[in-house]
Amino acid sequence: MRRTRFDDWDCSIARSTDILGDWWTPMVIRTALLGARRFEQFTAALEIPRNVLTERLNRLVDEGIMAKVEYQDRPVRHEYRLTDKGRALYPIIVSMLEWGNEWLDWGDDGPPVHLVDRETGEPVEPVLVDARTGRPLDARRTRAVYTRADVTAGPRRRRPA
Amino acid sequence: MRRTRFDDWDCSIARSTDILGDWWTPMVIRTALLGARRFEQFTAALEIPRNVLTERLNRLVDEGIMAKVEYQDRPVRHEYRLTDKGRALYPIIVSMLEWGNEWLDWGDDGPPVHLVDRETGEPVEPVLVDARTGRPLDARRTRAVYTRADVTAGPRRRRPA
Repeated sequence: MRRTRFDDWDCSIARSTDILGDWWTPMVIRTALLGARRFEQFTAALEIPRNVLTERLNRLVDEGIMAKVEYQDRPVRHEYRLTDKGRALYPIIVSMLEWGNEWLDWGDDGPPVHLVDRETGEPVEPVLVDARTGRPLDARRTRAVYTRADVTAGPRRRRPA
Repeated sequence: MRRTRFDDWDCSIARSTDILGDWWTPMVIRTALLGARRFEQFTAALEIPRNVLTERLNRLVDEGIMAKVEYQDRPVRHEYRLTDKGRALYPIIVSMLEWGNEWLDWGDDGPPVHLVDRETGEPVEPVLVDARTGRPLDARRTRAVYTRADVTAGPRRRRPA
């Protein structure tokens, strides 16, 4: 069922898209970041078809984004925990939340979810900054450079096999 | 060709996924953020099939993420410019770049692209912080709260028609 593959591109965004572009996957990761670990927690939160969830979780384990861990041995039961690589997806998922909250039409009710500080309960204001200066980053402030002379064709060049 | 729809969910991440989960779309937006505006610039940068590019650009215009602007009248020619809503996708795309650069396997060469400050040429270090405190945000520091009493079923509840 997969369409265009981006996993062999010489481009971080293409290869991230190859993983996150699987339908349902950002929702699975969001649910894991909210604390879900067990198969039934994901199906309850998302009403995702079981075969699709199985396929998505298996790929996330293959990619090292989740680890499948036995939590009970009679009968054997497994849960799925985000790895460091998986938890590092947090800025992507939160940026999607913030963009959606700000720019999509929610009618008079406003967006349904926002983030608060876990300790204080105060709303947080996620913003992408340059850690060196603390200044917010945007497209006008940055440009992309190639780190290797052989990437002359840019992000579209495929990696050597 | 669309599979599961997320655009009627009561969840920013679901609705963002509905847009960004279209294959090729994050790549089209990345290319636009790098400066592409004309149809041929996108096809040259991405080797994307023309019919797919047309479909993606039309949807981005429908969503208000791009504006189709006439830049020549004999013959009539259009280009595609990111709107404010489109440029606001920058933190998502940059977070995907940073995650891919850090966590995917690039072999001995390292990742092909990084971001620099447009004025100084110095590498930037994008990090998601809480604007109130300047502290980096992660899943342990925040939790999601519902802004309305009627979102009791949480993010999976569909919006009323």
